[in-house]
Parts: sequence; C-alpha cells; structure tokens
Amino acid sequence: MTRSNALYAQSGGVTAVINASAAGVIEAWRRAAAKDAKLGKLYAGRNGIVGVLAEDLIDTTRESDAAIAALRHVPGGAFGSCRFKLGDPAKPEGKGAAQFDRLLAVFQAHAIRYFFYNGGGDSADTCLKVSQLALARGYPLQAIHVPKTIDNDLPLTDTCPGFGSVAKYVAVSTREASLDVASMASTSTRVFVLEVMGRHAGWIAAAAGLADTPTHPLPLLILLPEVPFDETRFLDAVRAKVDAFGYCTVVASEGAQTADGKFLSDQGLRDAFGHAQLGGVAPLLAGLVKDQLKLKVHWAVSDYLQRSARHVASATDLAQAVAVGKAAVALAMKGRNRVMATIERTAHKPYAWRVGAAELDKVANVERTMPAEFIGADGYSITPAARRYLLPLIQGEAKAPWQDGLPLHPTLKRTPVAKKLPAFAP
Amino acid sequence: MTRSNALYAQSGGVTAVINASAAGVIEAWRRAAAKDAKLGKLYAGRNGIVGVLAEDLIDTTRESDAAIAALRHVPGGAFGSCRFKLGDPAKPEGKGAAQFDRLLAVFQAHAIRYFFYNGGGDSADTCLKVSQLALARGYPLQAIHVPKTIDNDLPLTDTCPGFGSVAKYVAVSTREASLDVASMASTSTRVFVLEVMGRHAGWIAAAAGLADTPTHPLPLLILLPEVPFDETRFLDAVRAKVDAFGYCTVVASEGAQTADGKFLSDQGLRDAFGHAQLGGVAPLLAGLVKDQLKLKVHWAVSDYLQRSARHVASATDLAQAVAVGKAAVALAMKGRNRVMATIERTAHKPYAWRVGAAELDKVANVERTMPAEFIGADGYSITPAARRYLLPLIQGEAKAPWQDGLPLHPTLKRTPVAKKLPAFAP
Repeated sequence: MTRSNALYAQSGGVTAVINASAAGVIEAWRRAAAKDAKLGKLYAGRNGIVGVLAEDLIDTTRESDAAIAALRHVPGGAFGSCRFKLGDPAKPEGKGAAQFDRLLAVFQAHAIRYFFYNGGGDSADTCLKVSQLALARGYPLQAIHVPKTIDNDLPLTDTCPGFGSVAKYVAVSTREASLDVASMASTSTRVFVLEVMGRHAGWIAAAAGLADTPTHPLPLLILLPEVPFDETRFLDAVRAKVDAFGYCTVVASEGAQTADGKFLSDQGLRDAFGHAQLGGVAPLLAGLVKDQLKLKVHWAVSDYLQRSARHVASATDLAQAVAVGKAAVALAMKGRNRVMATIERTAHKPYAWRVGAAELDKVANVERTMPAEFIGADGYSITPAARRYLLPLIQGEAKAPWQDGLPLHPTLKRTPVAKKLPAFAP
Repeated sequence: MTRSNALYAQSGGVTAVINASAAGVIEAWRRAAAKDAKLGKLYAGRNGIVGVLAEDLIDTTRESDAAIAALRHVPGGAFGSCRFKLGDPAKPEGKGAAQFDRLLAVFQAHAIRYFFYNGGGDSADTCLKVSQLALARGYPLQAIHVPKTIDNDLPLTDTCPGFGSVAKYVAVSTREASLDVASMASTSTRVFVLEVMGRHAGWIAAAAGLADTPTHPLPLLILLPEVPFDETRFLDAVRAKVDAFGYCTVVASEGAQTADGKFLSDQGLRDAFGHAQLGGVAPLLAGLVKDQLKLKVHWAVSDYLQRSARHVASATDLAQAVAVGKAAVALAMKGRNRVMATIERTAHKPYAWRVGAAELDKVANVERTMPAEFIGADGYSITPAARRYLLPLIQGEAKAPWQDGLPLHPTLKRTPVAKKLPAFAP
C-alpha cells in the first residue's frame, strides 16, 4: 500500500507567526499519522510553490518534535516563502497549464494527497486552482488553505493570523514613540510620522488607534487607504493637534492615496502579482509638515520590522496561527476539500473564538477592506466598533525564549527529499 | 533654617530608560532627605532647562513612591526634555550671560543647592558651566551630571544609559528582519536596509553585529560614520553577500558619510546645537541597490522607535540607568561637585560593573567614537573586541507590566511649584 503523503508550503509575505501555523500543521499531521497507517509523510516546499515546481521538497519527518514546537518562536518563513504568480491554467498560450501540470506531476510522484497552503488571497486562489485541476484530472487531492496575512484582508474569517501581531507592534510603537515626541515637543520635534504596511486595506494603520486610550489620549492622525488623502485637510488636522496637545503623531498606511487612486508614494515598482511596490509615504508627509507648517518633524518606516517582530507578538495571534494549522489537518481528515480554515469570533468581551471553515471559491480573490463604520467621522481615527473588533487581537504577550540577550531562534535541518522527476523550468 | 532643595532636569533626546534614571535620583533623594533634616524638596524642570529658565518647576514630592518606581517602565521623558543650547556666559554680547544669571536666580529663589542634570555631551557642558558660574558668584551649588545618551559617545564611562536598550532593539530587529528577508529571497526581496541613529559615532549601527552569531551567521553589512562610504565598494559587498547567502542585510548609521565628510543624506536641517538633522540614508542606499544591482530591496527607518522601545529594553541598561541616578545623589551627599556618575566595567565575562565618577571638565564636549579596533578589516563588520564590549550591554529583558494588550505607562501628576520670580524671556 502506498501511503498518502502531504505537502505544506508557505506563500507570500511572511509574518511573525506563520511558522506557528507550520508547527500546527506538522504537529497535527504527526498525531493523525500516528493513528492512521494510511497516512505517510508531510513534506514542505522549499521557498513555497517555487520549490514544489522544482521538486525541491523538505522532509519534515527529519525534524524533532522539539524543533517543530520551537517554530512558534521564530519569525520569517522557516521553509522559505515566495512571491510567484502561477500562470492561468485555462490560458493555453501562457505558462500556467505547464505549471499546474508540473504541480500535479510532483504530487503524483511523491504520493501527495493533501496540500496545505499557507498564504493570503493570491495563494488562496492558487490553492483553489490546484484543487480544481486535480478534480478535473481525476487526481485524488484535498487542498486546504491555511490563512496568513498581516493585511487582514481575507474574507470569511474574523482575522488573519499574522495581523494581530503587527497590530500589537503598531499600537505599542505608536504609544512608545508618542511618549518620546511628547517629551521633546516644547523645543524640538512636534510631529512624528510612522509609515506602516497595508497595501489596499487600512487594518494595520487602524491598529495605531488602540494606543489612544482614556488614560493616554494621543493626538493621533491615522491615514487609511480607504479615506482619500487631502493635503489641506491633513495639514489643518496636524496643526489642530499640535495646537491642542503640543505635538502630533501620524500613522500612515503605505497605501494612503488621493481621491484619484494615486498612491502618495508610488515608486514605480511592481511585485510579481502586479501590485505597486510602495515606500516612502512617511518622508513625503514629513516633508509636507516641515515645508508647509514649519514644524520640526521626525519619521520612521517600519517595513519588515513590523511583520517580523516576534519579540512583541500577540499571544492571541500566536494561538490562532497554531489553531488554523491544526484545523487545516483536521478538516483534511474529515474529508474536506477546497476550504480555508477560519477564525470565528463567538464573543467580543471577553473575546472568544473557535476555528471554522470557509469554501475556497468564496475566499479567493475577495479582498476585505475596513468597514466604513470602523472609520471615525474625521477620517483620521477609528470608531468604538473598530476598537471592539481590534482590541482582542492584540491581547497577551506571546512568550519566547531568549539567550545571550537575543531571542532564541532554533533552525531546522531542512533535509531534502530525493527527486524523482526531471528538472522543470517554471 | 532653610532646607537645601534639589533640581533634576532631563535634557536632549530621550531614551527608553531616562525615566529609570529619574527614578534613581528621586528615590535616592527621598532616602537621603528622610535621614537628613537639612535636605528639602527635589524639584524637576518641566521640559528640561527651558522649564528652569521659565521657573516652571515640578514638585516631585507630590508623586507617590509607587508612581516614581513605575518610571522604570515608561519611555520618553516623564518631566519633559528639550533641545535648547544656552548661550556662552562668557560672551557679553550674547544671551548666555542673562540665561545663566536667570538659572542662578531660580536656584536661589527656590533654595536649590543640588543640580542633577540628566543628559549627553552638550548637557554635560551646560552642567559644568552652571557649576563654574555658581562658584564664581559664591553661590553654593553642587552640580552632578547623570549620563544619558543612546549615542554612547560620552567619555570616561563604560557605556551611557540608553545605549544598551537601543543596541538590543537594533540587534533584535536585525535578526528578526533578516529571518524575514532570508525567507523571501528566492523570488522577491534580496536586500534589506535598516537605518539607525548615531550622528557621529557608529555605536548603534555596530550593535547590529551582535545578531550575527555562529548559530545564525548573517550576511550583514554595517555602515559606520567612522568608515568613509564608497559606492562601488558597497555595491560590490552587497553583491558578494547576495551571491553567497541569497540575501543581504544592511544596517546603516544615519551618520554614514563619504570621505569628504558629507553625510549620505543631509536634508539641510540643523538642530538647536547646529548639528545636521539627518534622515533618509536607507531609501538612498535602497535606491542604489535597486538601480545599480537590479535587486529587489526593502528599507526601514527606525528613528524614534529605536530609542523609545521600552518593551524590548535591556535589563542591564535599565539597571545602569537607575544606578547612575542613585549614584548622582550619593556623590552629592559626599560633597562632590562638577562630576558625572559613570559606569565602570570590572569584568567582561561574566560582565561586572560598578558606578564611579568622572570630573565634568574632562567629559564636556569630548565625543567618544568607535575605537578602530572595534571595526572589522572589511569596514562593514565588528571585531571580536567590539562584541566583547557590546554583548554584555544587551543582556537581560527588562520586565514591565502590560495591560489590555499594551504596556502600562503610568503618568505623573506633575504638580507645578509656585513661582517666585518675574517672567523671563530666554
């Protein structure tokens, strides 16, 4: 009897807790395989789907239980991720058909019957297409999506693992930097601008609003992609905050844009998916404040720091990341296919959640933006409803071991699986 | 009998632990005053020396012991700081003489006999001048400097409180972001550039080297102000790291400069001390890498985040910040004047230190740059000697309370002291 193997792959931008989802998948698979002789090995694609195309697989059975458990503490993608857009398999003139054929050939060569794909919206679409093609070809495959994106823009799940930790990083950084600026403002810096990620949805920037509390009211302006940027209104708002508080903290989404949809700082780069590659909103805003308001300004761009900051990860986020990994395996064992493991909120306060499942065809290529009722009337703040949604996600400080002043980041062996197929040029 | 009062003031850029020094001063003063009826109140200048000039003093006796102890957890300057350069009192044509006269008038009006000034090099010079003027006028004053600067550029102390925490932030961030980039490098980002502070000395950027360990060798290039920037050499070095590791992490000091002393990114701003106000080295380097090497690059500027990141502060740094505060009061009680409390290293491994004292006239306006033997032969790395010096400073994770997902940041009452003098325009 040929045992059924499984494949796990990480996709897209990594997070502080994507490896916790990997740990969830691997641990649940080990438990399932220990009880079911028909289940074989769990492989991982090296550098995501690119490694699968190259038949560059990692044998996760070579890693100790302790090494897998320790993935909870390590940011980045322990097996490697990628940004690689597969072609459309329905278009015979493109590379898509050959790529999807290759994926199925690799699955067949290694008896892979379960595909756990850990990514965001684009990956959900890939996961769905792989599953549909397998169905059309009569290849027995269950494809389960494991949600992951700091952008929090996947539908049908209360939140996306990775987001809660970025939200916590942004809220903590906003509070800490504001305390700094407040103490300098009498003679020096009056305005601090922090640029955070969030290409089309303002979830990450919105999290800065959590730092503004009754005990610590902050003169905070949040720039969301959902609210068109207007230079005059913005400068007036900065001036008003400085007049009232002595200083102002601006947290700007990298996706901040004017009414005509032009990003404030489009550097002209495009990533593999055709998305604009952004950067530089903070210096642009800082320049405006300096030139127009003649106020001293400092600016920061947190970029990869925000999504790799495992040292300040949310315990809630970490627990959910592990849970969707375990849930994906459980869904597979129940015979589910073309689904994404989800987080379902069952209560706001105290926050309660459980894992669920959503059909992949309702997930793929659907982008969830901030609801209008989460955005304050001034366009620069969040509402109590947003706070009620966001605050539970940053609860708890996810513990991790330290050694010699630094976080302890165990590494994996990443033992390759012997190849069985000829080489393939994607 | 008129009791002798004391004045504490924070100066210059604040840090994650400057309030811990405030706690040290206030707690030691309370203990001393409880035993000595001649000692009166400890006041604090609101927003540093600017508040002293304005006779805007805060009565620290109104704060509870618990509130003072909790200062250990709060970044920024709890009493307010300032960037304000006093004029030279020896130049009758300037404002300096009137300013120093005013300082002494405020001291006299409030029976201030002890001056604890918490700052960096410029503040040490101010502290010295205040003391010298008091001496010349026959006003009984003991002026004690409490060292503080993330730049680590004060002489005659093993390190400067504030630096160890920034060093830890930079080392942790470098490691975490490198794990992120490493996992994206097969198809996406190859180079990550992190800009850190350090105007003229590369101490902060050097701390990134601590993230490069035998268990986690990093393809790291550190750009120090001490090593002239050469574009071709830099790009060759990036290319070599990418060829060898698949990716490269660049940590650049904001003070990185070419051989002719021109900062890589001089925005033309000047602060109150006449220092160039920098920013934007990271995007500049990222642009070079993108244009010349055609590699995908991400960049971050940590700016105030690095110096306010109390959530990842070094326990060693925090302990030293408290210790120099307490030591300053002890020095005053021993009758010392015109001195700075210092940290003396007594052993490298295990690290041992004690507090000491240095004469202020040997401290003021002396800037300690990185010793040449701390800089690797390639100009982009640190030596084992540097590691031996730096590693003890980031040891330990300084605990702090959290509440509702955020650090708990208690605030002070900051009760004003009744004014006794006419207003003064500095």
